Amino acid sequence: MTEIKIGILTVSDRASAGVYEDLSGKAIIATLDEYLSSPWQSVYRVIPDEQALIEASLKQMADEEGCCLIVTTGGTGPALRDVTPEATEAVCEKMMPGFGELMRQVSLKYVPTAILSRQTAGIRGKSLMINLPGKPKSIRECLDAVFPAVPYCIDLLEGPFLTCHEEIIKPFRPKA
Amino acid sequence: MTEIKIGILTVSDRASAGVYEDLSGKAIIATLDEYLSSPWQSVYRVIPDEQALIEASLKQMADEEGCCLIVTTGGTGPALRDVTPEATEAVCEKMMPGFGELMRQVSLKYVPTAILSRQTAGIRGKSLMINLPGKPKSIRECLDAVFPAVPYCIDLLEGPFLTCHEEIIKPFRPKA
Amino acid sequence: MTEIKIGILTVSDRASAGVYEDLSGKAIIATLDEYLSSPWQSVYRVIPDEQALIEASLKQMADEEGCCLIVTTGGTGPALRDVTPEATEAVCEKMMPGFGELMRQVSLKYVPTAILSRQTAGIRGKSLMINLPGKPKSIRECLDAVFPAVPYCIDLLEGPFLTCHEEIIKPFRPKA
Repeated sequence: MTEIKIGILTVSDRASAGVYEDLSGKAIIATLDEYLSSPWQSVYRVIPDEQALIEASLKQMADEEGCCLIVTTGGTGPALRDVTPEATEAVCEKMMPGFGELMRQVSLKYVPTAILSRQTAGIRGKSLMINLPGKPKSIRECLDAVFPAVPYCIDLLEGPFLTCHEEIIKPFRPKA
Repeated sequence: MTEIKIGILTVSDRASAGVYEDLSGKAIIATLDEYLSSPWQSVYRVIPDEQALIEASLKQMADEEGCCLIVTTGGTGPALRDVTPEATEAVCEKMMPGFGELMRQVSLKYVPTAILSRQTAGIRGKSLMINLPGKPKSIRECLDAVFPAVPYCIDLLEGPFLTCHEEIIKPFRPKA
Repeated sequence: MTEIKIGILTVSDRASAGVYEDLSGKAIIATLDEYLSSPWQSVYRVIPDEQALIEASLKQMADEEGCCLIVTTGGTGPALRDVTPEATEAVCEKMMPGFGELMRQVSLKYVPTAILSRQTAGIRGKSLMINLPGKPKSIRECLDAVFPAVPYCIDLLEGPFLTCHEEIIKPFRPKA
C-alpha cells in the first residue's frame, strides 16, 4: 500500500517567530484527521513569509517527501509580506483556478472581504497544492467546499487512493 | 455575406489514435447546428494531447482558416497529459477569464469535481477560442451557459454576424 | 491626518478625443462622493486606449500622486483596442482575482455578456487598482459589490483610514 503523506505549511512571520501558537496548521491537521479514513502522515512546517523559503518548502514537500497533497495557510492577503500565491505559482507546472474561485465564493457568504484573498491552487509533478486562508474558521469552510474533489484529483495524478469518513465529507469520483 | 467558419478541435490521445470514436467533437457540431440559424462551416480536427500540436492547430484555424470561433474539447483536467489551457493561453493575445469562471460554476451544480477543470478562453486576432470539457453532457451545459455572449463577442472582434434559433439559445447584444 | 487621494482614470479613445463627454469617470466621482464620509481628493484623467499611456498614468497616480485607490473605467472588453487589464497587470506586483470574479458575477445577473468583461484588480506599492466597466449603470453595480472590502484592503496596505456613510455602503473590517 502506498504511504499517504500530506504537507501542511503554515506561512506566518509571527507564528514562525513563536509570537503566537500556530492554531491554523493544527486546525488543518485536525480537519484532515476527521475527514480521512485512510491512514496518513503529516509533514508539518511553520515558516516566515519569505517567498524563497515558501518555494523551497513546497518543492521539498513535493519532490523529496512525496506528499500527494500540500496545503498552506497564511500569506494570501494583499499586504506587502503576503506572497504565498506567488510562491505557489512559481513552483507549479499547472494552475487550478477553480479552487480559488470556489473558496472565495464560499467565504463571501460570511465576509465581504473574502475578495481580498488571493488563494490559488496548482500542481507540481504528482502533488496538488492548495492555499487555504489564515483563520481556522475560514480554513474549515474552504476545506469543506473543495475537499470532495481532492481524492479524484490525486487519482488523476496517479497518487494514493484516499478514502474518507463519508458521513463527514463525501469524496466524488465520476464514473469513467 | 461573410462566410462563417467555426473550428472544432478535439484533443485526446485515445480518440486521435482511433481507440474510441470522438463523440465530444460530434456533440459540439450537433449543438452548434441546433443553435445557429446562420449557415456555417465546420473546420474539424482530432489531435493528441501534445501542446505544440494543439498550438499549431489553433493558430492554423485562426490565421489560415479564418475561424471566428474555435472550441476545443478535452485536455483541461489536472493530469500530466492535460495541456489544452496552456496551449490556448500560449497562442492568445487576450485572456477571457469570465468564460472559465462561468463554466466551472455551472458544472459545479452537477459535480463537485468541476473545480478540477482548468478551462479558459481567449482571443487571437479575430478568433474567440473557448475550451470546453471532455464529456458530451458537460459540453452542452457549458455551451448553453456561455453561448448567449458569443455572437456579440464576435461582433466586437469585427467578425461575421451570427444569428441563432432563439427558441433554443438567445444571443444577447447590448444596445449601444 | 493623511490626505486621501483617489485616482479616476477613464480609458476611452472617443472620450479623450472629445467625441463624447466622459460620463463614466464622472459617475465614479459622484458614487465615491456618496460613499465616503472621509474628505478626499480626486486625481482625474481621461486618456485614449493606449497600453503604454495607461501604464504611465497608473504609475503616476500610484507613485507620484500617492493615490491609495485607483479606479479605471473602459477598455476591459474583447476588442482590439481594449487593453486596460493588460496595462493594470503590467504595473501591479500582486493581482487580486477576487475583484474581477465578483464583479462579473454581479453583472451576470443583468446581462449574459458580463463574461466578456476582463476586469481585474491588483496592487502596486500602497495603491489598490480596480478596473470598472465602461457604462455608468454597470459601474455602480460593481462598486456596490466590491467597495465594502476596499477600506480594509487599504488598511492592510498601510494607507489612510477611509470612513463611509454607512447607510449607503457598509465597509467591513474583520476583528483581529
